[in-house]
Amino acid sequence: MSNDEMTTIDLDQILAAAAAVPLTGPASATPAQRAGWLEAVAGVLDGAADELIPLAQAESHLPAARLTAELKRTTFQARQFAEALRAGTLTPTQVDAPDAGWGSGPRPDLRRTVVPLGPVLVFAASNFPFAFSVFGGDTVSALAAGCPVVVKAHPGHPELSRRTAELVAAQLPEGLFALIEGVEPSLTALKDSRIKAVGFTGSTSGGRALYDIAAARAEPIPFYGELGSVNPVVVTPEGWAQRPGEIVGGWLDSLLLGSGQFCTNPGVVFVPDAQAFLASVELPKPGRMLNDRLEEGFQKSTALVAELPGVREVAGGPANEQGVAARIFATTLEQLDPQALDTEMFGPAGLVVEYGDTGALVDVLQRVPGQLTGTVQGTESGDEVAAEVVAALSARVGRVLYNQWPTGVSVTAAQQHGGPYPASTNSLTTSVGLAAIERFQRPVSYQGLPAGLLPTELR
Amino acid sequence: MSNDEMTTIDLDQILAAAAAVPLTGPASATPAQRAGWLEAVAGVLDGAADELIPLAQAESHLPAARLTAELKRTTFQARQFAEALRAGTLTPTQVDAPDAGWGSGPRPDLRRTVVPLGPVLVFAASNFPFAFSVFGGDTVSALAAGCPVVVKAHPGHPELSRRTAELVAAQLPEGLFALIEGVEPSLTALKDSRIKAVGFTGSTSGGRALYDIAAARAEPIPFYGELGSVNPVVVTPEGWAQRPGEIVGGWLDSLLLGSGQFCTNPGVVFVPDAQAFLASVELPKPGRMLNDRLEEGFQKSTALVAELPGVREVAGGPANEQGVAARIFATTLEQLDPQALDTEMFGPAGLVVEYGDTGALVDVLQRVPGQLTGTVQGTESGDEVAAEVVAALSARVGRVLYNQWPTGVSVTAAQQHGGPYPASTNSLTTSVGLAAIERFQRPVSYQGLPAGLLPTELR
Repeated sequence: MSNDEMTTIDLDQILAAAAAVPLTGPASATPAQRAGWLEAVAGVLDGAADELIPLAQAESHLPAARLTAELKRTTFQARQFAEALRAGTLTPTQVDAPDAGWGSGPRPDLRRTVVPLGPVLVFAASNFPFAFSVFGGDTVSALAAGCPVVVKAHPGHPELSRRTAELVAAQLPEGLFALIEGVEPSLTALKDSRIKAVGFTGSTSGGRALYDIAAARAEPIPFYGELGSVNPVVVTPEGWAQRPGEIVGGWLDSLLLGSGQFCTNPGVVFVPDAQAFLASVELPKPGRMLNDRLEEGFQKSTALVAELPGVREVAGGPANEQGVAARIFATTLEQLDPQALDTEMFGPAGLVVEYGDTGALVDVLQRVPGQLTGTVQGTESGDEVAAEVVAALSARVGRVLYNQWPTGVSVTAAQQHGGPYPASTNSLTTSVGLAAIERFQRPVSYQGLPAGLLPTELR
Repeated sequence: MSNDEMTTIDLDQILAAAAAVPLTGPASATPAQRAGWLEAVAGVLDGAADELIPLAQAESHLPAARLTAELKRTTFQARQFAEALRAGTLTPTQVDAPDAGWGSGPRPDLRRTVVPLGPVLVFAASNFPFAFSVFGGDTVSALAAGCPVVVKAHPGHPELSRRTAELVAAQLPEGLFALIEGVEPSLTALKDSRIKAVGFTGSTSGGRALYDIAAARAEPIPFYGELGSVNPVVVTPEGWAQRPGEIVGGWLDSLLLGSGQFCTNPGVVFVPDAQAFLASVELPKPGRMLNDRLEEGFQKSTALVAELPGVREVAGGPANEQGVAARIFATTLEQLDPQALDTEMFGPAGLVVEYGDTGALVDVLQRVPGQLTGTVQGTESGDEVAAEVVAALSARVGRVLYNQWPTGVSVTAAQQHGGPYPASTNSLTTSVGLAAIERFQRPVSYQGLPAGLLPTELR
């Protein structure tokens, strides 16, 4: 259904169907049934790769190889949730037996499990047309939890979104999935009392505006927004002495991957010697950006950083057909404007910050705005600066990397993709990995129930 | 420090000291150290019982026996967290080994643990001067997580709060604990960027006002508010046929316990025959309420319910010295005004709702505002209405009880004290039981770290 065609009645029907899905009791879906849905959709999407990838290519300007890998990751993710659902590991339970001598007074029979929150509104992202879009991580984890999902399509890839949605909806029971388009319908849905949680991936300004609406509702609802990050990298003096070429090369590869359009893009690097670090920097022509809006945003944010006091532009590459060129800026720790750490240049640009005193460096890291990731490039042992930097970053980021690079977020149980604000609006949760399901289910305890009335997993 | 004495400088010093406590790295407290703090405070409070209980009695009008049991529960709770901290069960970890053949691309070494959120602001409640006050569940679970705590004293028991705070602070390292008083200082703290989470127990209106401030900050923070609930009870036709006297007696005992001043007070009961249910109701003179504000609130909320269309007052008891009397109202399911389910009469009052058709009853239960608890009084087997009611309540409450009563919240691992809004502002968490710690710690993943740089629990 396109934006133009969507009426208030259509949206109301979508929300009514979502709200009618039973969340608890014998009519609600079992974990095994949810696993079946996810596997069915994964199979259909894999089977439609030859149709979907050209659609994605035309709308996103991303290369076929990248999109093929992304689709594979997307269906892998769904199957991973399905497998864990069947194994029972996504339905945490706790059983306390009655205990007459319990220290806070006689303890009853108390058993806890989880139930779905209810219909979830998902705002799709543009930079992953598969993995963070219609059937991306938010949708899959909400469905795994047993929640109906209403996806707001990203306008960056409308045809791909519609076709994906058709394929998804055909595999799911009535009410469990719907696609909507356009800002107005999505805001109406966000304010509707039938929506019980929100998933969002995008910019800090856009995400914050939606967060504010969710928080102001008569019934406030959880808003899981993955917003902006500059993903600081710290090169220690010992790391630099040992592997200068590898570090510069690794940083540029990660920084410029996919024209820098990743939320884990390492936009700021702290180095002991900027001149030496920059000596071997060569910047290639970037690929075409995902859409005009991102291009404009990139020009704006780089212009802002370029004009901060103490910042110089120290390297530039050739412009692509759209006039976008990679840019590297530099400053020093003493001159570092706090705004530089708050400005995500979403695209092929980075800021090199030279530090002298490592104590001053740690001070700055302790006050850095919340980040998805923080990376340390040091030595494998005996690097005392690295130890201090790891401790400081641990308090400000969701994932700490050592001698690796932050782009490429592994879809696995131990992943944490989320960090203190503004990296995300809820730092206690992750939007990637199996723990993402926790965002969409809530605990319920049962006290003294006859076995026959307990949810199956508690009997 | 009293309200009058507190200056902006005092508050700033308190927040600066809290923010200076290291949350990560070698200088941060280990779980065993945190366990030691909790045990030390528990020991000191138990030892001061002879001093604290008379203080509490004078300010709360609660009987000594109740306060003695409450203090015991409070220190038991602290020791329970301490025990779990030493056992390692409150520091959930996940380790994923590297896997070159992983389906979403080669998987790195990824290990996840949790870190403290940072300084927590706790708003103490009046109705539990020990268990939900200065060293109550919010304070204990935040300290267990490694978070510094700033408690805003409840004005209902200022002397007890100050003395408790002195005893607590003397057992804890610098910066970990402070008491503040007065509305203005608490609002200043709530808006201060050094505060990273909030715990609150109280009314829906008060809690919502504070929630709105937390959500509107430049950096929004989690607000864990336990607000209002009417805790519906459903008596099934079969349950009523089997145990009428036990059910009426059990309801009145739970409803009038502590003059009805419990958040799990079962304020609304759905019965198949109101006349029969009410036949044996006799109401005693209630004990003195906790404070004038609650007395006023009780008179206001009961007056509101009394004037709802279709509501009759069907029983009343003798007034106590303050003019407070127990009151029972009745209505029918057909005439039930939605506001009746949204109005917590915090005190000795209840509403009896007679239902005819059980389908209509289930419809109403499915749309009930979020509740801390829902109770079913049925038969031990073969009660089909009970099965439907359990399924409906599971979607709207945090704890479902069967043939038991909701007052008396066991402090245990499987407890869930929290439910959909307005029962709480975050239905994914609990404010009672070991899982309460989850509110104050967030996940951090470590990718590729040398063993020596990993947090101890991940090595």
